[in-house]
Amino acid sequence: MADWHEIAGGVTAPKGYKAAGITAGLKPSGLPDLALILSDVEAIAAGVFTTSVVRAACVDYCRQNLQAKASARAILCNAGQANAATGSQGWLDALESAMLLGQALSVPSESILLASTGVIGQRIKMDALRSGIPKLVAQASDTGSDAAAQAIVTTDLVTKSIALETTLGDRPVRIGGICKGSGMIHPNMATLLAFVTCDAAVSPSLWQQMLSRAADRSFNQITVDGDTSTNDTLIALANGQSRTPAITEMGAEAEKLEAMLTAVCQHLAKAIARDGEGATCLIEVQVSGASDEKAARQVAKTIVGSALFKSAIFGRDPNWGRIAAAAGRAGIPFEQENLQIKLGDFLLMENGQPLPFDRAAASNYMKQKASSAVPQQGVVSVNSSGGGESVPFDRSASDRYLKDDTILISVSIGNGAGTGTAWGCDLSYDYVKINAEYTT
Amino acid sequence: MADWHEIAGGVTAPKGYKAAGITAGLKPSGLPDLALILSDVEAIAAGVFTTSVVRAACVDYCRQNLQAKASARAILCNAGQANAATGSQGWLDALESAMLLGQALSVPSESILLASTGVIGQRIKMDALRSGIPKLVAQASDTGSDAAAQAIVTTDLVTKSIALETTLGDRPVRIGGICKGSGMIHPNMATLLAFVTCDAAVSPSLWQQMLSRAADRSFNQITVDGDTSTNDTLIALANGQSRTPAITEMGAEAEKLEAMLTAVCQHLAKAIARDGEGATCLIEVQVSGASDEKAARQVAKTIVGSALFKSAIFGRDPNWGRIAAAAGRAGIPFEQENLQIKLGDFLLMENGQPLPFDRAAASNYMKQKASSAVPQQGVVSVNSSGGGESVPFDRSASDRYLKDDTILISVSIGNGAGTGTAWGCDLSYDYVKINAEYTT
Repeated sequence: MADWHEIAGGVTAPKGYKAAGITAGLKPSGLPDLALILSDVEAIAAGVFTTSVVRAACVDYCRQNLQAKASARAILCNAGQANAATGSQGWLDALESAMLLGQALSVPSESILLASTGVIGQRIKMDALRSGIPKLVAQASDTGSDAAAQAIVTTDLVTKSIALETTLGDRPVRIGGICKGSGMIHPNMATLLAFVTCDAAVSPSLWQQMLSRAADRSFNQITVDGDTSTNDTLIALANGQSRTPAITEMGAEAEKLEAMLTAVCQHLAKAIARDGEGATCLIEVQVSGASDEKAARQVAKTIVGSALFKSAIFGRDPNWGRIAAAAGRAGIPFEQENLQIKLGDFLLMENGQPLPFDRAAASNYMKQKASSAVPQQGVVSVNSSGGGESVPFDRSASDRYLKDDTILISVSIGNGAGTGTAWGCDLSYDYVKINAEYTT
Repeated sequence: MADWHEIAGGVTAPKGYKAAGITAGLKPSGLPDLALILSDVEAIAAGVFTTSVVRAACVDYCRQNLQAKASARAILCNAGQANAATGSQGWLDALESAMLLGQALSVPSESILLASTGVIGQRIKMDALRSGIPKLVAQASDTGSDAAAQAIVTTDLVTKSIALETTLGDRPVRIGGICKGSGMIHPNMATLLAFVTCDAAVSPSLWQQMLSRAADRSFNQITVDGDTSTNDTLIALANGQSRTPAITEMGAEAEKLEAMLTAVCQHLAKAIARDGEGATCLIEVQVSGASDEKAARQVAKTIVGSALFKSAIFGRDPNWGRIAAAAGRAGIPFEQENLQIKLGDFLLMENGQPLPFDRAAASNYMKQKASSAVPQQGVVSVNSSGGGESVPFDRSASDRYLKDDTILISVSIGNGAGTGTAWGCDLSYDYVKINAEYTT
């Protein structure tokens, strides 16, 4: 089993990181809206960004920056204005933001990475940002992860945070992460932002490879409504402050670190999926028997993204036909007589044909899986703050939030070795309500 | 402008076709459920079928049949049972269905094409089919198109029918079509079926090429919820009974015929989109400035399929940000500073940046576009039956149904010559209600 344990502290759990989150006056609501993640030393930096042609200025800025130099000291994130579709002035705003934080930290502005979330077409309120940055820097502390996690949300119902610890050789190594997403109650605030910190020492190209693979197995496997934002950003820092030997190529140590990185990303990705707009549960679709992992992931993601399937799950209807139909149109060839579908422990289809099953019991299985512990309003933290110390296995609030709301679908499409998983949420009245009932 | 006019008669408007629709007892509702389209002579036949790996027996049957011999005398379509995921017995049922109709018509069973719609995993009720076929054949007449159109629906709110007439040389040539789709009130009844008849003489390979291109510009450009059925089928017959010279290669005559075939398919496709579950309007997205037509179509279809965009349209919110974001993630490269977005006559974005516009007026434009004339329950015909005679330009019921419910979005992504259009509908509470409120 997993060779790590959970610790408190989020992105400040790894050694040598500080974080902060303040109210700078960017959001009309007066809620926290400016976040900082700071490494004590220049850290190796890797990033995965939106594939959209329509991108925010911060995305272009980070891409250029990481291509020139795969390292950074700090990440500055604002919420309230997406700074996307803002043209050349948006680009200048991004440059100025980096310069201002660089000056406040006495580091070159090339060591600053940027992220934005909020309304598309709106520039960052630069006056508020200018006066906020010194305050933000002054607040930075090694217990600041939760404050940062709260300052990056837009309309998420909960903040999302995790930290894991393992050992490389005999020394502890930690990876922490925070993210936001899927709370698009106001239009155009659809953004996935995730920030990961690590205190291992890794070579830049290997860290980027690890992050890209981890993203493919986590954030790229969740879908709330199939829409991709202009601002989606995943940045991971590795600052070497655990004093473990530098990892420069794949091997046992690298695999262990990558597995933990993947676990952090999957935890955060699932937290986004279950906080999807109007969601009443988390759906996990496991596909096996494919020719390779990529094919399996594609089938899993197609199923979990099907509007018909998502509606059936909202109705707690064990509708194997919609699962079979979605698997069939995923673009991955397979023999339909090899198709097997399970819902929890209920075998619904085998050899491509439906089996008799206890519909009431299967529906009951789904009815029991509900995110009843998810707060229905306001932003609350699900992971208490801390300075990196271990917490008991009973994770209290976080644990209650995470358990027993996952509806599991297992699909086998053949005899191949490829397996893959995707996560999503159901399609409810509230999704439509949230996204349509906006008075223009 | 278009070099044709609309006539009455649906699939029996072209010369040499009969049709029928009866209640054979396949649907539990007792509504018509068995349809026949019959050509007086062996007709050239082309088909486009679901790309899903999970397919109905009738799809495999038609594919094999058309590969062996690109001609047919008759199409038999049942509603009520999809005969998909029914294994080898479903295949034998399909073969028997073709054999039975062939015997009743005294034609080889190889001249029969098949289509099914209804519940996935259910075999056709063969006893009802066996006793229904003689009755069906007896009913076949040159005014039978509407009866056939009613017998192929599942839970569509309206039947869909069209016939157009032009001249090749100095002789009249006609294309008629009926289709069903998008009425998936009961689970697993999601099927797009479309049948087109033509009395021109065309070579088999050219007819298939024309049909494939027409499908790419019509049925393949509509989306209700992104789900593809196990049974999707488009079949087009061309029987030469107009006595026009055979068309064997592309040229002026072929282009004229293909343009009319495309118009028939687009009319039927739009009728399906506006009858989408819970739809309150038809959305047409026109994309220009792409490098080629395929790229333009892809951007258009991505926009019209975006759940966020569809929800905004339901709320009649002129949300250009969701249009820009969907265009950006369509997988087609373009420079975001070339992006232009119009809603009706309102210019919302130019040079990749939002423009000031009258939000209230733009929202009003959308509010006026509503399918208020769409019947809210029961199945009614929107195109009165007839024997092929011309009707005045005022198409009364059909015309009222079709006008003034189309919200037009125009997007330009550059200076290329590629243009493409896609059609869809908004995402409403009723979509979720229809697909979730199913008591297991």
